[in-house]
Amino acid sequence: MRKLRMGMVGGGTGSFIGDVHRKAAAIDGMIELVCGAFSSSAQRSKESGKALFLPEGRCYASFEEMILAEKQLPNGDRMDFVAITTPNHMHFAPAKLALQNGFHVVCDKPMTLTIEEAKELIALVEETGLLFALTHNYTGHPMVRQAKAMVANGDIGKIRKVQVQYLQGWMATSVEKEPSGKDFWRADPAKSGMGGALGDIGTHAENLTEFITGLKISELAADLGRFGEGRLLDDDGNILLRMENGAKGTMSFSQIAAGEENNLAIRIYGEKGSVEWHQENPNELITRWLDQPKKIFTPNGNGLYPEAASVSRIPSGHPEGYLEAFATVYRGFVQHLMALLEGKTVQNPTYPTVYDGLRGLQFISAAVQSDSNNAAWTKLQ
Amino acid sequence: MRKLRMGMVGGGTGSFIGDVHRKAAAIDGMIELVCGAFSSSAQRSKESGKALFLPEGRCYASFEEMILAEKQLPNGDRMDFVAITTPNHMHFAPAKLALQNGFHVVCDKPMTLTIEEAKELIALVEETGLLFALTHNYTGHPMVRQAKAMVANGDIGKIRKVQVQYLQGWMATSVEKEPSGKDFWRADPAKSGMGGALGDIGTHAENLTEFITGLKISELAADLGRFGEGRLLDDDGNILLRMENGAKGTMSFSQIAAGEENNLAIRIYGEKGSVEWHQENPNELITRWLDQPKKIFTPNGNGLYPEAASVSRIPSGHPEGYLEAFATVYRGFVQHLMALLEGKTVQNPTYPTVYDGLRGLQFISAAVQSDSNNAAWTKLQ
Amino acid sequence: MRKLRMGMVGGGTGSFIGDVHRKAAAIDGMIELVCGAFSSSAQRSKESGKALFLPEGRCYASFEEMILAEKQLPNGDRMDFVAITTPNHMHFAPAKLALQNGFHVVCDKPMTLTIEEAKELIALVEETGLLFALTHNYTGHPMVRQAKAMVANGDIGKIRKVQVQYLQGWMATSVEKEPSGKDFWRADPAKSGMGGALGDIGTHAENLTEFITGLKISELAADLGRFGEGRLLDDDGNILLRMENGAKGTMSFSQIAAGEENNLAIRIYGEKGSVEWHQENPNELITRWLDQPKKIFTPNGNGLYPEAASVSRIPSGHPEGYLEAFATVYRGFVQHLMALLEGKTVQNPTYPTVYDGLRGLQFISAAVQSDSNNAAWTKLQ
Amino acid sequence: MRKLRMGMVGGGTGSFIGDVHRKAAAIDGMIELVCGAFSSSAQRSKESGKALFLPEGRCYASFEEMILAEKQLPNGDRMDFVAITTPNHMHFAPAKLALQNGFHVVCDKPMTLTIEEAKELIALVEETGLLFALTHNYTGHPMVRQAKAMVANGDIGKIRKVQVQYLQGWMATSVEKEPSGKDFWRADPAKSGMGGALGDIGTHAENLTEFITGLKISELAADLGRFGEGRLLDDDGNILLRMENGAKGTMSFSQIAAGEENNLAIRIYGEKGSVEWHQENPNELITRWLDQPKKIFTPNGNGLYPEAASVSRIPSGHPEGYLEAFATVYRGFVQHLMALLEGKTVQNPTYPTVYDGLRGLQFISAAVQSDSNNAAWTKLQ
Repeated sequence: MRKLRMGMVGGGTGSFIGDVHRKAAAIDGMIELVCGAFSSSAQRSKESGKALFLPEGRCYASFEEMILAEKQLPNGDRMDFVAITTPNHMHFAPAKLALQNGFHVVCDKPMTLTIEEAKELIALVEETGLLFALTHNYTGHPMVRQAKAMVANGDIGKIRKVQVQYLQGWMATSVEKEPSGKDFWRADPAKSGMGGALGDIGTHAENLTEFITGLKISELAADLGRFGEGRLLDDDGNILLRMENGAKGTMSFSQIAAGEENNLAIRIYGEKGSVEWHQENPNELITRWLDQPKKIFTPNGNGLYPEAASVSRIPSGHPEGYLEAFATVYRGFVQHLMALLEGKTVQNPTYPTVYDGLRGLQFISAAVQSDSNNAAWTKLQ
Repeated sequence: MRKLRMGMVGGGTGSFIGDVHRKAAAIDGMIELVCGAFSSSAQRSKESGKALFLPEGRCYASFEEMILAEKQLPNGDRMDFVAITTPNHMHFAPAKLALQNGFHVVCDKPMTLTIEEAKELIALVEETGLLFALTHNYTGHPMVRQAKAMVANGDIGKIRKVQVQYLQGWMATSVEKEPSGKDFWRADPAKSGMGGALGDIGTHAENLTEFITGLKISELAADLGRFGEGRLLDDDGNILLRMENGAKGTMSFSQIAAGEENNLAIRIYGEKGSVEWHQENPNELITRWLDQPKKIFTPNGNGLYPEAASVSRIPSGHPEGYLEAFATVYRGFVQHLMALLEGKTVQNPTYPTVYDGLRGLQFISAAVQSDSNNAAWTKLQ
Repeated sequence: MRKLRMGMVGGGTGSFIGDVHRKAAAIDGMIELVCGAFSSSAQRSKESGKALFLPEGRCYASFEEMILAEKQLPNGDRMDFVAITTPNHMHFAPAKLALQNGFHVVCDKPMTLTIEEAKELIALVEETGLLFALTHNYTGHPMVRQAKAMVANGDIGKIRKVQVQYLQGWMATSVEKEPSGKDFWRADPAKSGMGGALGDIGTHAENLTEFITGLKISELAADLGRFGEGRLLDDDGNILLRMENGAKGTMSFSQIAAGEENNLAIRIYGEKGSVEWHQENPNELITRWLDQPKKIFTPNGNGLYPEAASVSRIPSGHPEGYLEAFATVYRGFVQHLMALLEGKTVQNPTYPTVYDGLRGLQFISAAVQSDSNNAAWTKLQ
Repeated sequence: MRKLRMGMVGGGTGSFIGDVHRKAAAIDGMIELVCGAFSSSAQRSKESGKALFLPEGRCYASFEEMILAEKQLPNGDRMDFVAITTPNHMHFAPAKLALQNGFHVVCDKPMTLTIEEAKELIALVEETGLLFALTHNYTGHPMVRQAKAMVANGDIGKIRKVQVQYLQGWMATSVEKEPSGKDFWRADPAKSGMGGALGDIGTHAENLTEFITGLKISELAADLGRFGEGRLLDDDGNILLRMENGAKGTMSFSQIAAGEENNLAIRIYGEKGSVEWHQENPNELITRWLDQPKKIFTPNGNGLYPEAASVSRIPSGHPEGYLEAFATVYRGFVQHLMALLEGKTVQNPTYPTVYDGLRGLQFISAAVQSDSNNAAWTKLQ
């Protein structure tokens, strides 16, 4: 085997999430960045590529140019997959073109702007047999994997209650009106899609809930807020959840929760016990029980299921963080792709895929519709 | 001045909340227990009184007997006030009779079974000028007082978002079917009222929210659960909140949250910062800010408002707990009553009163109505 | 049985520890304060007594007057025991006189100024058969009791390592030079004894270590600090410990640890596991294991030993604090005394006694001696 | 500029610390692994290199072979620096040979087995002008940098007290007697040096103390333990510290602290405030103050000094961990080396160097000597 070759769409100098993708792809030493269309400006794309020590010839002016040019390269040079790290409205087109030209895809979330686009990508993936990873990075944390395994193994019994929250405060003031605000596209419906905070972080909360519980959200009642002056998209939301098995719950997300940094947290209660996880302190899984004291699990610590132990890189007590969890999504994708290249079959990909992308869009769509009906119950479909 | 004399209704041997009232009343050395109708059985009332070192003659067979007998005692012996610590359905009658016979009242929550009863007590209090304290004990914590003062002083700016939860797990199994279950009345609509967990702990969450924010909940959308087999009353609830000033939020409460002990917690977000408090670790107030690091306040620690500093009994770092907060409600009541007995006027009682009791009933009523309409928005009135 | 009657020495208006003793004695409703020599000024003693609702006739001008006068009272009125809450140099004389006149004693720590005085009190206690409780209040916490029981039951195996600390910051500046400083006696060798922080809080650390481990400190190497300008007594100390079974450890205490409130904490490591407890968050016992995840015990929570469960007053999740732990020392004393009055025998008093007082003095003495020998190893004897 | 080229000594498949070095070097995309002598077995070295996607020709059978062969390569291919990740006794020889042949060095700690070797490396570094980074990785955490900057800026005033601990439990049982134990060299004086836990983790505690305080430990009194059956080297230690400015403190480290994972923590008290940091939760810096509430700083959060802000890779609330801190040491080294290659001057390297390596050996030596003199005070020299 060899290192896999990655081409990037987006992620020019100064980009937050593009840099995250690169670092995450680099950690495990299995991926080599070989090319990119880092910016919609050819000049900035070249400059970004240079800062990344790439040859000028593989710094492209557009994703179209990159995909078509790479396709022409010999097998031993050509990129293997595309990593899409652009704003939301720029996910669909490069993903589609990559799949149509035989490239596997890693894509940021939310996957597309509409359910229809999501379904089109699913069709392409099924048709081509190419791999598609969606970077719901929080699924990569060892303690999230442990929570999922404990639920799957019935440790906490049938699930009754879910509480999930994702609280940030960086839009508490009108950041989109500051000239510097590089992330202002998030407040622009044309670039962000139907949802504001809903799409940006609500989808993480939705994905994490379904990932750990193994249950689908069947319906929801959403009360979205637009607290920032003149803001068109939601910057806050409170949602009642009903799960397919009869469990109930709440979701709360916000980008105007003043002082919060990145407070994603989830609690899941079953008939016999419960699990609790906090993204800001990700190396603990708090578990509570009807008849035993509270137990705290840690990565590579005592009592883990293999699904959790296998994604810790270092001994217990040595904290891993956001980048490592992101890297675990990449690693799952790479391991799958390497197996594919070696002609092997993989039963259950461990990373989120195009189907999770569709769930995200269904969630956004249902929440927006519910909110416009004064929080009426709305099914995800 | 002298110690004030307390008579108890309920709270016989083995009672949880009756014992809490006694300990809370004792801590500050300003109250003397002089009599009680501790049980609906005359025999058990006497036995309970004996265990409390009371003379047999003041252990009554019923609250009616107690109130009427004490009324006949000379001024220097007669109880000053009645503490009502019975199950919910036994609050109204003794409260009413006490007020009608000139006794001040301390009453557990929820105050009554119905809004009508609550209004009747308000009318009696206004008519007689007697004092009425409702033991929403969590309002007595120094850090809750600090949170309230910070909000009132505008430190966190206009409030936008509220998250409140009250999670217990002791009804995760069918405890009411165990022969021993002394608290089985909580699952019985005749004794508990319209609400199960809603009345028992949801009202604490409601009261704490309105206490700290100084805002009224204007409407709610409630999805209640009845997870315990054959349970008639709710044992779980998820509620969307809208506050009178436009803020939004969630409330979640449960008595089937397996493994939880008494996890009451609240977070309030304003335009400039936020406050967070956890009952299980009550001696910290976590505050977050747009432009400063997180600050943790402690009882008698640095930077407190007088409203908080004045209710800490011991130096910082010496934790106070549940009983002390309960005692602070009693102390506020006693200070008010002593002032009254000395002919002084008190501007703002610091303890919850009969009006908070009405709010609780309005909250229960709205939540039950909303739930029966599939979580339709329902106003509190 | 009846309430036991307490007379106080010290604890006049404004006193910290006197007020703590009163509240602690009051919580469980088994003790009645009947008299006191609250101050060395007769006038202030009367005023203090009045504020406590005591009759003027039982507010004495001195402890001698109190002890002799109470001795003359009829059996049904006379105090049962004396609670001594004065500065360190005023413990021995009233304790001795009380014992000599047939009164049981509750005494604050450190018990005396010298080992000789401590031995004299032991002799008196053994001679008279009277009870003597030393208020090492931290032994009263349910989680401290759980830790002790776990060690005693061999859960963590043979003990190898101890870490104990007691950190405060209130003497970081020269508080003793401020005119207001009511606690200035603590910096005065004549009133405080050989040790400053050593006697005040080091003894708590020593007592807690021996209480939980069931092991004696055999020798120590102490490096004391006097950081406050012109301070004669230590305000900081770092000590190496060797326990009688070969375990080793560190103790660190300070009253100049700027910003610390009352950070007493202990960790004990055995061959199989370890226990950790923090006074500022006393309702958790953190335990770690060779082959299991970390487990957190809570008062009245799952998995407690009877020794811990029996000293929790309220359901799990309802925090108890400093006063309750103090009250548990009082309750142990009261239960013993009631048993004695009823002619029963008590095998193992659960509260610290005169022998713990001697250990404290031996500890202070050894540490001072070691420090004056440049931290040479010094045996406790 | 181009990526810098790294050659590794040690770090074959299955190695913990070698893998850490590779991941840390990879994260920021500035280093390329080009060759290695991964094992003392030529065969295993080749296999390890293959798993790392290296060409067979650059997987060497020994560090001598690697250094001499690479030296012959053209400038554009040759490695720039050597990363030494072998057991302690194998640090000195490759470091020396690399320096003698013109290669910069990154070396794991403790740097050498003896003070003499350390001084020899210093002489070589000074003579050649080559760079030498010692991977005291904990210095790379943003919150450690913040602590150092706060101390340097006088925020907490003159330092009075230090508490540092480094507690692990993985040697609580006789792991070195298990056939599988790959780390058994740590219990072997010939491979580990004078110190066991002392050298392995005590040196981290020593380095962190001097790094944050900017003060040298002037003397110490060490009581080392050998609790594991038949263990020749210390597996536990308790040390009294005296700092050059008069501050005092304790250090405690252990590898037999049953249940501990990697509990490195430090508290530093000054005249005005204090800082506290825990490696297992590295994204918080707890600060306490004489006159303000406790403040918690976070990476990229509010109120950071540039020294801390500049080493956070991602927005606040997105936790970084062990690997990122390690990577920050590498990044500091790479930035220095790139500057050097571009002919620029760097004033103050931000990474630990050969001088820190000497301090570590002086610390080990003093502690071993003190311990053999029954914990007599011993100067570091």
